[in-house]
Amino acid sequence: MRAISTQLIVMKNSTPHIVVLGAGFAGIEFCSAMSKRDDVRITLIDRQNHHLFQPLLYQVASAGLAAPEIAQPVRSIFNQQENLHVLMADVTAIDVHNRRVEIAEDTPVDYDYLVIGIGVKTGYFGHDEWAPHTRGLKSLDDATAIRRDVLLAFERAEMCHDEEQRKRLMTVVIVGGGPTGVELAGAFAELTQHVLRGDFRQIDPTHARIVLIEAQSKLLQMFDPSLSDYTAEKLTSMGVEVRTDTSVENVSEGIVEVAGGERIEAANIIWAAGVEAPAIARAIDGVERDRAGRLVVETDLSLPGHPEVFAVGDIASCTDQAGVRVPGLSPAAMQMGKHAAKVIVDDLKRKARGAAASDYKVRPQFRYFDKGSMATIGRSAAVASAMGLKFTGLIAWLMWLFVHLLFLVGFRNKLAVLLQWFYGYVRYRRGARIINGMDRLE
Amino acid sequence: MRAISTQLIVMKNSTPHIVVLGAGFAGIEFCSAMSKRDDVRITLIDRQNHHLFQPLLYQVASAGLAAPEIAQPVRSIFNQQENLHVLMADVTAIDVHNRRVEIAEDTPVDYDYLVIGIGVKTGYFGHDEWAPHTRGLKSLDDATAIRRDVLLAFERAEMCHDEEQRKRLMTVVIVGGGPTGVELAGAFAELTQHVLRGDFRQIDPTHARIVLIEAQSKLLQMFDPSLSDYTAEKLTSMGVEVRTDTSVENVSEGIVEVAGGERIEAANIIWAAGVEAPAIARAIDGVERDRAGRLVVETDLSLPGHPEVFAVGDIASCTDQAGVRVPGLSPAAMQMGKHAAKVIVDDLKRKARGAAASDYKVRPQFRYFDKGSMATIGRSAAVASAMGLKFTGLIAWLMWLFVHLLFLVGFRNKLAVLLQWFYGYVRYRRGARIINGMDRLE
Repeated sequence: MRAISTQLIVMKNSTPHIVVLGAGFAGIEFCSAMSKRDDVRITLIDRQNHHLFQPLLYQVASAGLAAPEIAQPVRSIFNQQENLHVLMADVTAIDVHNRRVEIAEDTPVDYDYLVIGIGVKTGYFGHDEWAPHTRGLKSLDDATAIRRDVLLAFERAEMCHDEEQRKRLMTVVIVGGGPTGVELAGAFAELTQHVLRGDFRQIDPTHARIVLIEAQSKLLQMFDPSLSDYTAEKLTSMGVEVRTDTSVENVSEGIVEVAGGERIEAANIIWAAGVEAPAIARAIDGVERDRAGRLVVETDLSLPGHPEVFAVGDIASCTDQAGVRVPGLSPAAMQMGKHAAKVIVDDLKRKARGAAASDYKVRPQFRYFDKGSMATIGRSAAVASAMGLKFTGLIAWLMWLFVHLLFLVGFRNKLAVLLQWFYGYVRYRRGARIINGMDRLE
Repeated sequence: MRAISTQLIVMKNSTPHIVVLGAGFAGIEFCSAMSKRDDVRITLIDRQNHHLFQPLLYQVASAGLAAPEIAQPVRSIFNQQENLHVLMADVTAIDVHNRRVEIAEDTPVDYDYLVIGIGVKTGYFGHDEWAPHTRGLKSLDDATAIRRDVLLAFERAEMCHDEEQRKRLMTVVIVGGGPTGVELAGAFAELTQHVLRGDFRQIDPTHARIVLIEAQSKLLQMFDPSLSDYTAEKLTSMGVEVRTDTSVENVSEGIVEVAGGERIEAANIIWAAGVEAPAIARAIDGVERDRAGRLVVETDLSLPGHPEVFAVGDIASCTDQAGVRVPGLSPAAMQMGKHAAKVIVDDLKRKARGAAASDYKVRPQFRYFDKGSMATIGRSAAVASAMGLKFTGLIAWLMWLFVHLLFLVGFRNKLAVLLQWFYGYVRYRRGARIINGMDRLE
């Protein structure tokens, strides 16, 4: 397996080799921006074979969509792009001193430029011991596991004659009142209040308890307080127990303990409270990281002292040219991916003219363009803010729908997703209420 | 958990309790046929929460459809049916002497009538030691595992520089030339010849080897020989190696040995050659079984000596009133489910008149109505025979498409599936080319 990098280098020796880690929004956008360049070779490495439309992951977790509907095979996105080679592999080491990464089975892949867009993982603020008792929501497997566990808990409640145990089975606790937590809470409220209604004979799913816990005083901190208030009111009216100003003290199997000593028993505990850099980013030698382990970048998005290495998307800890902290959102990731491509293309042009290729000072600087933010709460309810304006309710929900459909990669997904949403809207049905992956449990 | 049966019996003591095992075609049809009867209580038990449209399972295995698209939650099928209670549970014992079944955790469920529709599992003709080296195709988890393994093998081939190893990774062997084997072989041929074409840089997916092995001299034995010949020719033209008159002597990890000593190395070996009764059916005390362990039934579909126990669908070994062997096909299963319902309703009517309820001789006898058979080979190619007529090619494929869409349970699935097929047809794309469930491998 040692031959990969060698072979590639022999192929076209003088052409710069760009290695891109991660086929998320940043990585995909970077590669697309380089599609016409025949003066580079790109190797895109991801441990999954698919690009994931993460903003809709909560829909898979709450049985609204099937897993393949929000994912696109990376190879089919780039099958026309001649300068690009996709590898499905785990990256085991990033060595910025020797300009190489290693993939599984100790295969080195040398690079001239490295673009790190590996994203972040669920973070527990130093309480990794809580992880086994909760589920995060970062991958398709996370989402289908949540779907399976929540649906299974209701099946077990139906056969359970112990009142305490039944209540526990019918409780879902979501920790974290950001967009993911809000969207999950809303989706589970609709699932139990409407979709599952009438499906059981011994239990009443509308009595299920959906608890949303947030340590701060407001949900959706990044929004205007009036939108946060609207969100809390709307969720409450949908039957969600919204618990702001409530910090989690401990998590054990089936139990969340909050400040003040209250213990909430729940068969399903979902952790949407924090993110941190994956181990591979923490293991890079000699680079600067923030508290969550994210890679600190210059305003051109390169790592300090390593003009040939870029961090883009959620893994980058970035303050832009205007002094704005760049948020961990997909539009920001796409803008960063595109910017890194621009910087490298400029480098190559300068080099072609005989100038110093990677001079940090002459490079274009990144400026985040805030297109606004939105979060959906439920059927015809969302919040959105854009260009100084605030929106709630149906109008915000339609904006959310439009933007998400527009960005979904691939024609087929758009139509199938639109169809399902329309059907779900009209009939309060969920097409993906399937428990599978039971093999894993047995 | 001991309370279930007791509680149900206390609820409505005089109402006969019908326990139905399995939410396949037979069980679903039985329950639907009883939907208007308020003089019975039905408990439908399945270890899955979904009814599976098995004839399209090969489409999930070959990445054409997402798992939820061919499945329907059992609870939502029956949520309007007041006399029916769904339990998602494993049946651990069937005791026909004491008229009770046991579900997980030793909970007994007593019955007045029992309808066994648990289907069959992959069978190895006494060579169970081959099972770990192959994959069967009976459940959604089987199908997503095949999809993952085949797609992963191509990913590994792309990174592999050993010629022998690469060939092995790009070989899929399918054992069994019945409808499932033929449909899988055709679907994998299209996947490698068209869908994956151009997606890789180091390997050429069109060089993949798809081998279909059949011990008999013809594929699709149940069809007219001219249709079998058409099928073999069509598959061959699509690039499938059709090996009839070839019996498998041994299967070990990655190797199929066939009569004559030839060893075929293949990363993926799919077993579609036989079925047998699951262990739970083999463990029933004092009932007659055929060689594959299926339950032998009278022509009213009850077990000999047990007029209150019925076997329906694939688990029944049945020769009908006219002396016709009933095949293991979904239309036959549905007819049997409906017939068992009719027999029980007749019993109840006789009982209401004061006559002997379960007199075997006065019961209606089952007669299988053969609506014809069909199997699809690939894009606009299928074989069908109905009412003495034979069809091949596009017309047979359109018949197949029409019949399968017609029978798909649930509005939403029909539209989504139609959409995907249409898109797949026009663009040679497959929407569900997603590798997930990797957790299981790690």
